[in-house]
Amino acid sequence: MTAPLITLTTDFGDGSPYVAALKGMILAIDREARLLDLTHHIPPQQLRHTAFFLLHALPYFPPGVLHVVVVDPGVGSDRGLLYVDLDGCRLLVPDNGCWTLLAASLSGSPRVRRLEESRYWRPSVSATFHGRDILAPVAGWLSRGLDPDLLGPAVTSWVELTLPAPMSGHERVTGEVVFVDSFGNLITNISAETVAGLGHGPMRVLINGEVITGLARTYSEGAPGSLLALISSGGLLEVAVNQGSAADRLHAGAGEPVLVAASAS
Amino acid sequence: MTAPLITLTTDFGDGSPYVAALKGMILAIDREARLLDLTHHIPPQQLRHTAFFLLHALPYFPPGVLHVVVVDPGVGSDRGLLYVDLDGCRLLVPDNGCWTLLAASLSGSPRVRRLEESRYWRPSVSATFHGRDILAPVAGWLSRGLDPDLLGPAVTSWVELTLPAPMSGHERVTGEVVFVDSFGNLITNISAETVAGLGHGPMRVLINGEVITGLARTYSEGAPGSLLALISSGGLLEVAVNQGSAADRLHAGAGEPVLVAASAS
Amino acid sequence: MTAPLITLTTDFGDGSPYVAALKGMILAIDREARLLDLTHHIPPQQLRHTAFFLLHALPYFPPGVLHVVVVDPGVGSDRGLLYVDLDGCRLLVPDNGCWTLLAASLSGSPRVRRLEESRYWRPSVSATFHGRDILAPVAGWLSRGLDPDLLGPAVTSWVELTLPAPMSGHERVTGEVVFVDSFGNLITNISAETVAGLGHGPMRVLINGEVITGLARTYSEGAPGSLLALISSGGLLEVAVNQGSAADRLHAGAGEPVLVAASAS
Repeated sequence: MTAPLITLTTDFGDGSPYVAALKGMILAIDREARLLDLTHHIPPQQLRHTAFFLLHALPYFPPGVLHVVVVDPGVGSDRGLLYVDLDGCRLLVPDNGCWTLLAASLSGSPRVRRLEESRYWRPSVSATFHGRDILAPVAGWLSRGLDPDLLGPAVTSWVELTLPAPMSGHERVTGEVVFVDSFGNLITNISAETVAGLGHGPMRVLINGEVITGLARTYSEGAPGSLLALISSGGLLEVAVNQGSAADRLHAGAGEPVLVAASAS
Repeated sequence: MTAPLITLTTDFGDGSPYVAALKGMILAIDREARLLDLTHHIPPQQLRHTAFFLLHALPYFPPGVLHVVVVDPGVGSDRGLLYVDLDGCRLLVPDNGCWTLLAASLSGSPRVRRLEESRYWRPSVSATFHGRDILAPVAGWLSRGLDPDLLGPAVTSWVELTLPAPMSGHERVTGEVVFVDSFGNLITNISAETVAGLGHGPMRVLINGEVITGLARTYSEGAPGSLLALISSGGLLEVAVNQGSAADRLHAGAGEPVLVAASAS
Repeated sequence: MTAPLITLTTDFGDGSPYVAALKGMILAIDREARLLDLTHHIPPQQLRHTAFFLLHALPYFPPGVLHVVVVDPGVGSDRGLLYVDLDGCRLLVPDNGCWTLLAASLSGSPRVRRLEESRYWRPSVSATFHGRDILAPVAGWLSRGLDPDLLGPAVTSWVELTLPAPMSGHERVTGEVVFVDSFGNLITNISAETVAGLGHGPMRVLINGEVITGLARTYSEGAPGSLLALISSGGLLEVAVNQGSAADRLHAGAGEPVLVAASAS
């Protein structure tokens, strides 16, 4: 049987020897491990960004893949490290909430263990790099087929992280930009369902003094350079510019308020 | 038999969850797929840059490798998606011309199919991300050994993309920079053959007010910091700085005019 | 038997077609080669940075992995190319000293061969890209199981590269920053042993007008934003900012002087 895939998501940047150290430690336990980079460009220590990244990336993978996430501002404190199983989507993560948005979007209850069995860790554990010293060797052991139940005790509480919820008023919803993708598209915390709940007329989107009327179906609607609102591939309201960057055009980033109003209001 | 390799070339940037989504969708179809990143740093939606990248990258791969290219400014319009076979160099690409420069550099005729059989796609196809919803699952099916003839009808016309041709005059050629590599070397559209056609004396290269006399054989000729003209590893005239960046030194980028004149002129 | 892993470390940047060309050339020799990116973000032609990167990355890998390093400011000159075996840690490198810091940190003597057997190279070798034309095909042959003794003659001298040594005085040591990681942590050339040699009291670290008293054990000691000195995961004195960038805070980079003084001095 082929070894399961192990994906890597970190905030190390890809010039860092720490990415290489993670890979080396996994391979030192299981030479046959199959490694796959997801990103090493999470903004340093940004848990909300991490949560959003995982929410939009991991649901496409088949069950059984092991996802190692090393975004760990609390390293060296007493925060725990967790093995999480979300109906076959398996993660090794610090207990900092980076995975709970993803869990909330899936059906089923998380099965979670706290990593305590140090026999599966690097013999010498540094205070500053638990990704290399604990998560990577544990990933190597899981790649070799270790039963996750041996990693430590089952736990039923953990740190939760939530995105801000949009506020709904009479025929309007106020949310904010929660993620800016690499094209400069502004993804908001307002869901397609919420937008649909405003009724069937052409709603208006207000952001940084600009008004967008109606929802586009694709980026290529309207003239090049024109502002568009559409539902992103992840099911959230998104503001984009046809063949351009909405972030640049609107000087907007995460946290920018977004108002959606029904047509009649 | 080992699964064929699948390479990925996109303009997503590597902080993007979209790269991860592509990988996940391929693996969801074929868990044994072997994935290889070429780059995720094509400048957003730049087809000419993409064409140049593929021209300089793909000829080194052995036949049978499948190259998935997701640079797709026309997503959501009615542009097609293609499976292309160039004597064993196989591509999955939007029909936007990004592969035709490469095809022109190779012998043999392209065999091309337009992707129409939606049974090999994601059941729910978004309007904004055909890379994930069509190209990735089709790549997964090809990885599992699907006959490409089943993907859709053979076609004999497609969008062509061409680089500007240099203009030849009496003992001189006028071209332009078409690609700036990551060292700041300026690669032009003037071929080694064109340069050789100017005769055997030490020709001169004029760019942004600077004159370079003669062709160097290596980057390390001349003093550190000195300007050089040489034939690039891809067979094109290139302007470089020994241990430095020609792009910075000359404040030049793609589109900068380059004149090559015979020694006697 | 599975093919050994081949890692890639270059200064090409990951938008470069040269990274893809390297991968293609390896696969053209051995279709089954298993490739792993370490980084393509070595600052262009920076050998000291490369040396530091390898020193902090390669020791974590199991023996047998082959590490290909293409940081090659001397390409086209008569510098050699080497196959190096450091007790099972195998490298293909230009003979520019990038690997000798790593070798000095390990026990055992390097076994080194100079690549001279051109039958294992690309038939046409360019003057500007020996990574693609020599190192990559040789890596492919090694992946297929070629005996490294066939690559060329054993050699016993090579270019050495050293980091500056700290200067020790009476109860004080003067060193400098030698590496800035992607979090902005400043790693110095002062070892944990040197610091310990100053005695057991709370020593002081002076850098760019700031004084740090005592060694922290983790990044999370002290208030967010406060300066810390600690021993890095690689065993060197490091200056960091809790949840921030010491490089930004101190406007400091490689070469910045660092003074460590015993408590009583």
